[in-house]
Amino acid sequence: MNRSTISPVEARQQFRAGLIQPTSGWSAGFAQANLISMPQDLAYDFLLFAQRNPKPCPILEVLNAGETFGGIFGSNATEADIRTDAPQYRIYEHGELIDSPASAVDYWRDDLVSFIIGCSFTFEHPMVQAGVPVRHLEAGRNVPMYETSLACRPAGSLSGNLVVSLRMIPASQVADAVRITSRYPAVHGAPVHIGDPSLIGIDDINNPDFGDAPLSEPGDVPVFWACGVTPQAMVMSSKPPLAITHAPGHMLITDAPDLGFQVP
Amino acid sequence: MNRSTISPVEARQQFRAGLIQPTSGWSAGFAQANLISMPQDLAYDFLLFAQRNPKPCPILEVLNAGETFGGIFGSNATEADIRTDAPQYRIYEHGELIDSPASAVDYWRDDLVSFIIGCSFTFEHPMVQAGVPVRHLEAGRNVPMYETSLACRPAGSLSGNLVVSLRMIPASQVADAVRITSRYPAVHGAPVHIGDPSLIGIDDINNPDFGDAPLSEPGDVPVFWACGVTPQAMVMSSKPPLAITHAPGHMLITDAPDLGFQVP
Repeated sequence: MNRSTISPVEARQQFRAGLIQPTSGWSAGFAQANLISMPQDLAYDFLLFAQRNPKPCPILEVLNAGETFGGIFGSNATEADIRTDAPQYRIYEHGELIDSPASAVDYWRDDLVSFIIGCSFTFEHPMVQAGVPVRHLEAGRNVPMYETSLACRPAGSLSGNLVVSLRMIPASQVADAVRITSRYPAVHGAPVHIGDPSLIGIDDINNPDFGDAPLSEPGDVPVFWACGVTPQAMVMSSKPPLAITHAPGHMLITDAPDLGFQVP
Repeated sequence: MNRSTISPVEARQQFRAGLIQPTSGWSAGFAQANLISMPQDLAYDFLLFAQRNPKPCPILEVLNAGETFGGIFGSNATEADIRTDAPQYRIYEHGELIDSPASAVDYWRDDLVSFIIGCSFTFEHPMVQAGVPVRHLEAGRNVPMYETSLACRPAGSLSGNLVVSLRMIPASQVADAVRITSRYPAVHGAPVHIGDPSLIGIDDINNPDFGDAPLSEPGDVPVFWACGVTPQAMVMSSKPPLAITHAPGHMLITDAPDLGFQVP
């Protein structure tokens, strides 16, 4: 099995069978995605939260209550199952992380609406193609992610702080990183912060809240993008009765080609 | 009063005072927007309809039930009022157009959620700056709009066909028009159709469903963009109890600078 050339359907079947592994580099050319499933009575608040915070929460697909596949995530139950096809899940009850299972089947309810949200892995391949180093990819590690001090715009009962991903970029290539990622607004788009981490409440970049510690070379600049883990910070802050998410870095692999999200 | 340099607040006050006029060319540099206000119990369905149809329904702002200003549409009741500050409204009851008043105050209810949706007028100025003729602007007319045979993706109780706006573009500049408008995904973005109108169910481009008839020069190609009147086609098809919209071409003028929507 070559993980970079495996089809999305085959990748999902690997994870359904129990494989737990970060998905960076899997099924090259197909968009990976964040997941949050919430009870239907909170679905409007979440859709509004996403609309008001489009950089961290660019919604690619919404599955109706109880649906487990559809749209860019499989066309039948064999091809895709939202409850089993991420490598690892996180289960939150009243804002507390209570489990990190390989399958969310035991927690599934038919009133759960699933939101499939764009992921910055989509623009990493174009960065590499343009010669911009993506250090965590080169090292086979997970991207570092941090909860910031920047408040998202609240919506109804939902609020929380922005989570960002970090890539250390050579100073001469920061402009390229901005230019390339700006072309992918549906998967977080341009950076939200370039430079001093302390200005956005990150005291120690070597100690990320999610993922692996960053790697850097002399002259690198810290560049931060809005991150699809933001809904999990919202969950911890807003304490809905139940939320099912992917584990950070352990994404859903969709059928949507990366290039479909590129403008112009 | 110079309509192109008047501030958004002043423009809104003109319309609040009763002026009825298409807004093309007003308050240059500030985003104009489509409006639809719907009862709160349909708000989730509409937000989902918009998420599933982002080209015709790119939501720029949502005002909570009963709110009449906020976000990119004024910071207090003097600056902006969603019920009075479009030049003209359309009132739909059960899908029937029952009134086209200059003010929607008589129909307002405190359970109405207002959706402010991007408008293609935002990318007309950059087209003009790049030398691409925008023929309805030159002639001081309203843009021609058509209901197509293309179905939007439904959401809950809401469905309907795509509405498009038409600009006749010289053949040698169609690529420029694509390139420029692609950079504005939040205000309809790239064209959805270039060429033969009959392929999308438009039998007679000289007889638009909304706005004025098109003007063209020899060699022009018909270029169609997704249009923010699509929610009105949805209303006529789905027949919600009440919907308040702007009159086509008679837009809300927001405080958001056009350039803020440009990528990259």
